[in-house]
Amino acid sequence: MPDPGSSPQQSSTPAAAARAPAAPAEEAGTGQDALLTLPGPPAFPFPFPAVGEALPEVRESAPVAESAPVHVPEPEPVSEADSEAVSEPTPGCDDGTVGEPNSRCAEESAAAAGQAGQASSALERILCGPSGPGTSSLRPGGRGLVSPAPPASQASPSSETSQPPAQGEPIPGLYHHPVPEPDPARVGEVSRRIKRWAVDEVQAYPPEWEEEFDGFSVGRYMVACHPDAPTIEHLMVATRLMVAENAVDDCYCEDHGGSPVGLGSRLLLAHTALDPLHTTGEYEPAWVESLQSDAPRRAYRSAMEYFLRKASDSQADRYRHDMSRLHLGYLAEAAWAQTEHMPEVWEYLAMRQFNNFRPCPTITDTVGGYELPADLHARPAMQRVIALAGNATTLVNDLYSYTKELKSPGTHLNLPVVIAEREGLSERDAYLKAVEVHNDLMHTFETEAAALAAACPVPSVLRFLRGVAAWVDGNHYWHQTNTYRYSLPDFW
Amino acid sequence: MPDPGSSPQQSSTPAAAARAPAAPAEEAGTGQDALLTLPGPPAFPFPFPAVGEALPEVRESAPVAESAPVHVPEPEPVSEADSEAVSEPTPGCDDGTVGEPNSRCAEESAAAAGQAGQASSALERILCGPSGPGTSSLRPGGRGLVSPAPPASQASPSSETSQPPAQGEPIPGLYHHPVPEPDPARVGEVSRRIKRWAVDEVQAYPPEWEEEFDGFSVGRYMVACHPDAPTIEHLMVATRLMVAENAVDDCYCEDHGGSPVGLGSRLLLAHTALDPLHTTGEYEPAWVESLQSDAPRRAYRSAMEYFLRKASDSQADRYRHDMSRLHLGYLAEAAWAQTEHMPEVWEYLAMRQFNNFRPCPTITDTVGGYELPADLHARPAMQRVIALAGNATTLVNDLYSYTKELKSPGTHLNLPVVIAEREGLSERDAYLKAVEVHNDLMHTFETEAAALAAACPVPSVLRFLRGVAAWVDGNHYWHQTNTYRYSLPDFW
Repeated sequence: MPDPGSSPQQSSTPAAAARAPAAPAEEAGTGQDALLTLPGPPAFPFPFPAVGEALPEVRESAPVAESAPVHVPEPEPVSEADSEAVSEPTPGCDDGTVGEPNSRCAEESAAAAGQAGQASSALERILCGPSGPGTSSLRPGGRGLVSPAPPASQASPSSETSQPPAQGEPIPGLYHHPVPEPDPARVGEVSRRIKRWAVDEVQAYPPEWEEEFDGFSVGRYMVACHPDAPTIEHLMVATRLMVAENAVDDCYCEDHGGSPVGLGSRLLLAHTALDPLHTTGEYEPAWVESLQSDAPRRAYRSAMEYFLRKASDSQADRYRHDMSRLHLGYLAEAAWAQTEHMPEVWEYLAMRQFNNFRPCPTITDTVGGYELPADLHARPAMQRVIALAGNATTLVNDLYSYTKELKSPGTHLNLPVVIAEREGLSERDAYLKAVEVHNDLMHTFETEAAALAAACPVPSVLRFLRGVAAWVDGNHYWHQTNTYRYSLPDFW
Repeated sequence: MPDPGSSPQQSSTPAAAARAPAAPAEEAGTGQDALLTLPGPPAFPFPFPAVGEALPEVRESAPVAESAPVHVPEPEPVSEADSEAVSEPTPGCDDGTVGEPNSRCAEESAAAAGQAGQASSALERILCGPSGPGTSSLRPGGRGLVSPAPPASQASPSSETSQPPAQGEPIPGLYHHPVPEPDPARVGEVSRRIKRWAVDEVQAYPPEWEEEFDGFSVGRYMVACHPDAPTIEHLMVATRLMVAENAVDDCYCEDHGGSPVGLGSRLLLAHTALDPLHTTGEYEPAWVESLQSDAPRRAYRSAMEYFLRKASDSQADRYRHDMSRLHLGYLAEAAWAQTEHMPEVWEYLAMRQFNNFRPCPTITDTVGGYELPADLHARPAMQRVIALAGNATTLVNDLYSYTKELKSPGTHLNLPVVIAEREGLSERDAYLKAVEVHNDLMHTFETEAAALAAACPVPSVLRFLRGVAAWVDGNHYWHQTNTYRYSLPDFW
């Protein structure tokens, strides 16, 4: 465990948001006040305990199988017990009573109103632009001064419960924010539960892929990306979806039997596990049966069902939208693979805005046990911040997986490869330019997130922005330390 | 003009909703009270005048070019003048003031509360299940009793401003609701404006496609589908998007040079005209330029820009989501075409839930000048009603375009073709079974819409449900009467 006194250098907006004056707790009691009064990023591992959850979450070790939902084509409405920390029922419906829609947002607004000026000036002072350990190394003369990174040795996948992962090295010059080592108790518990889910509940992979599954280190990944998750089960919501998304990518698109041929059909049919078919009684049973017919669909269906227990209707709609974007991105990339087309750099970046981590950070509020209201999520400034964060964090994947993808058969598109080809640069110069593109996106993300936080200082917005940035930082941490999967090129 | 005294037999839910007791007008003054106190469907053509628009809308004949938006990659925030009838600003943001989020929904709920019991009992009495002129002909012994439809003769496209369209014949046994002839003055004005937009603003088609464009009769189509649009400009929002969607389908997927090869790339790059790219300063200009590089992208970009002037942020998000679904549907169909795969019937129906009219009825509130709040739109019951309506109305297209598609080169999938192939039925029996599938979906749509209206009798929900049903009815009307494009098979 890191020294709890050492403040990790997280993305500036969320950290600044954390320093903003306190606002009343959200009605669900998820510890919003604790979040806002922290002097800096939270001390790990349990900064945001939910009301009524006095015990450390790792003691919630009820076997997943005991709470496995029944298999139904469209999950039943979320019960109160399941969604207690997330959302209130939509008003005026079903029971004929009248409520207050999005009252959380109204309460937040009211709470924030008295503090708006105060918060704005504090934010202005604090959020004076991006800075970080990675930035200075790309300043004038910086590239040549960056110390060379030793080639990272490939590690064996270790059991996540037994020992800390290999450290790895950050890409020299890559603008990022280190995070503290995720709590090993949480990592261990999530790792145990996710393996049980993958093996026993959805049969996500055959036994011979076990080493690869362990090497994915998805428990460590999700614990690092969601430091404010109130319980292990909240972390499991993110972890199951991440495993399911990877099962679809691996089995349909890439490493394990994937192909661009017929991909449009496979992805659409899998998408119905997230966004259900509504058809006649004659044809529905065959569709329901199809959702059990392969690992990707079993994983999507089950992960979505658990997600719906925690998510509001609008959060579920948001996730479906982001997943449809992801699938469009896969299909654009597949089209290029099939036609052996080398896209322009801007075309590649457009595809990569869709074939993107976006569905992962945008569930940060569900995983955190609160809700960013739909109307605030839809605001153009928020959409822009989300897209910029998604693009930056996705390029981290391009950069860390560069050597892995070079070794795989065929041409695997990533930003350095496309820049080299389209702009006539050497592999090294193209890679370093891709680092700059990433850094530029990160800086813009932080600047625009700070502006949005200043313009709209309601607690759910501040916490969501902080959650997205924490995801970006956690994602970098995971790539840097996953020496089982990734190693750096020898460009420095 | 039809006799204003004759009540068209529209889908039962909206008609019943219209008969529910009056509720206070929505804050935008779009005539909600008038809607709710009407004894039946509205008397055409101007049932819902917007506040401040005393003149008949057809006199709003300012040339479109005069109000054409400037070309920017991401449209500026909607001005108050543009959005006066739609949405209020999200609270607590930008200006530091505090407002009441979704106050319309709260007001509606409050207004509906006192009437809930009354409305529910009225709805229960009225919404006793689906009925309609098409239903009885499919009751026991019905099919044999249906009078044969004479083959519709193919008409020449007439100028929409000069004469009424050919009448056409409904498909025998198809459950549908006739609508009155759309107001010819509105049709004429929309037709004039849309042609000017298509030719002068976005160059949507070359001169040799003019006859086909006229034959599309999109002005008549949209006027029929949006009887509650308060102004011509509201109708234009829907009409531009419809033309743009057809330009993409024609040019990328089907009739005019489309191909499944590389489609994933083309659709994604076009999708960025709706859901913009956020990238670095170096690469953004090439993307902006790309949006002018072909007719589909020019049309998407411009139509979206006009749409954003009327839509709230959440309505825009909803539209982007529905369009990403549509593009996924195109890509599944393309995958089958490329692999010459004949899908199972349920697979075809799943694909068709995505390759679907859905983006058209779901903008009914924007076109109507009001907003169904995002949280109510996201409710599972509403999502199910929308999906059912979209599926039924999309199968209308399969059935009316059956002979057109049979004549086109290659195998064009539609429901009768897939049923014939997969279930070993004759062409006639497969077609008649497809009619039954459509009718089943229509009945379920109406039943579930009625249940939702009873459970959630807030005015925006009732009006939205009515708008979706009006779209379904108008879509059938357009298919039936578009004898330039469609003719019926000789199966009766």
